[in-house]
Amino acid sequence: MKKSPTVEIISVGNELLIGHTLDTNSHWIAKRLTRFGWTLQRITVLRDSLNAIKDGVTGSLGRKPDLLITLGGLGPTHDDMTLRGVALALKKRLLLNPDALAMVKARYSALEASTGLTRFRRKMATLPEDAQPLPNPVGTAPGVLIRLGKTSLVSLPGVPSEMKAIFNGSVIPMLKAARGQAPLEVSIGLVGIIESALAPALDRTRKAFPGLYFKSHPRGREGGIRSLVQLHVYSVDPGSRAKLDNAIAYLLRELLRSAYSDRTVKETGKKVLA
Amino acid sequence: MKKSPTVEIISVGNELLIGHTLDTNSHWIAKRLTRFGWTLQRITVLRDSLNAIKDGVTGSLGRKPDLLITLGGLGPTHDDMTLRGVALALKKRLLLNPDALAMVKARYSALEASTGLTRFRRKMATLPEDAQPLPNPVGTAPGVLIRLGKTSLVSLPGVPSEMKAIFNGSVIPMLKAARGQAPLEVSIGLVGIIESALAPALDRTRKAFPGLYFKSHPRGREGGIRSLVQLHVYSVDPGSRAKLDNAIAYLLRELLRSAYSDRTVKETGKKVLA
Repeated sequence: MKKSPTVEIISVGNELLIGHTLDTNSHWIAKRLTRFGWTLQRITVLRDSLNAIKDGVTGSLGRKPDLLITLGGLGPTHDDMTLRGVALALKKRLLLNPDALAMVKARYSALEASTGLTRFRRKMATLPEDAQPLPNPVGTAPGVLIRLGKTSLVSLPGVPSEMKAIFNGSVIPMLKAARGQAPLEVSIGLVGIIESALAPALDRTRKAFPGLYFKSHPRGREGGIRSLVQLHVYSVDPGSRAKLDNAIAYLLRELLRSAYSDRTVKETGKKVLA
Repeated sequence: MKKSPTVEIISVGNELLIGHTLDTNSHWIAKRLTRFGWTLQRITVLRDSLNAIKDGVTGSLGRKPDLLITLGGLGPTHDDMTLRGVALALKKRLLLNPDALAMVKARYSALEASTGLTRFRRKMATLPEDAQPLPNPVGTAPGVLIRLGKTSLVSLPGVPSEMKAIFNGSVIPMLKAARGQAPLEVSIGLVGIIESALAPALDRTRKAFPGLYFKSHPRGREGGIRSLVQLHVYSVDPGSRAKLDNAIAYLLRELLRSAYSDRTVKETGKKVLA
């Protein structure tokens, strides 16, 4: 079975930590990683602080993911300091990158409002040594790719439209090139049962089907009558569809069996919906 | 000036990392921390993996926040392993906590559907040594408080209604008891200017007003005419309202001044709206 490549995301921005902005970028990326069989191991949200970014990137690289994505902090202003933090963590110099400068220049020359390549605009083309700029079709700050042995480090802007455009253009091809096993997932809603009453049957099913992954989420009130448990069953092996079906059948049988010895589970077992 | 107490959040759940569920819990908490003058330094989202949780908690405690909040993984099933991970990180045993057991018991005795205190229900009352359960008024798994010298560690369920109920009942009083300085924030929209054209004036303003914190977010297209920059100006000193107003007046003056020497900024400067 092919191994699933691993990913970490570092999302930078005080606005995410003061409760001003909800980090929807990581969620959007997570869906796409899953679709191409890559495994997101960790998301870290950090302040606009050089030390915080340096420490976060160092910690992440120490866990040796195949891909590390940073989000935010690539813009022209002083508070955009992600690449400075990355360069510190990698002990690399920051240099004006000619390819990146050409991208920024092309962008501004298209603007009637251009006031030339100020140092603030040149900042967006100042990248860690050996970095490669990734074209930004809808904004000015290019994305950045740095190859570091096992890990590829990709830095994307925090503005969602720009992040998505660079991700679609430059990151999706990377995901496709080393496509992992997209996990197989079956999800069922169990109506009229509370999570702790489901637990014994679920535990037996888990033991009977090693290699499958079960995750239950209570959706109704534990104290109420209209309880609902959402159960997800996953396998990283896409050839295990029959095994997943068998596991769910086994679980439902276990729930019904205990119904004969327990009035409560009987009531709920009857209502089980697949 | 009073120092702002620091916080980290660790949010546990594969569903957050596969793109199934958006982590709105951390955002909800972040707003409240800011309101009471506590500073959220970092959010870490982790898999349902004992090692990942142990490593995440160890890393977080190493940064010595005043408060570490874990979210998720307190339920009755096998995949709920946050307290096992916390206990490993703290090198503490897991013990059946009599106070927690009384809370769980009271909850289930209220249920018609009760099938007794199964080991799955006892699991929710099995806490790290020296932990204190926090009442859960709307669900079964109690929250958990562990005092560790400088850091208080609070574990809350991932179900939003339960997380919020315990947070309101048990965590808000902690925030109030050591209330920090809520930062002062002024936010203005600058219409018709792109972020990189704003940068020089913003840079001069930043230098003229040390102690204030400026963060700009592009809202319009850099290449378009209807550009908009949202500018937030913060101070952790709530007595600095006049200073904030002066800084904004200074910035607007700087923008208008450059309008005389630059056609572009002139066009945009005129449209500045406070």
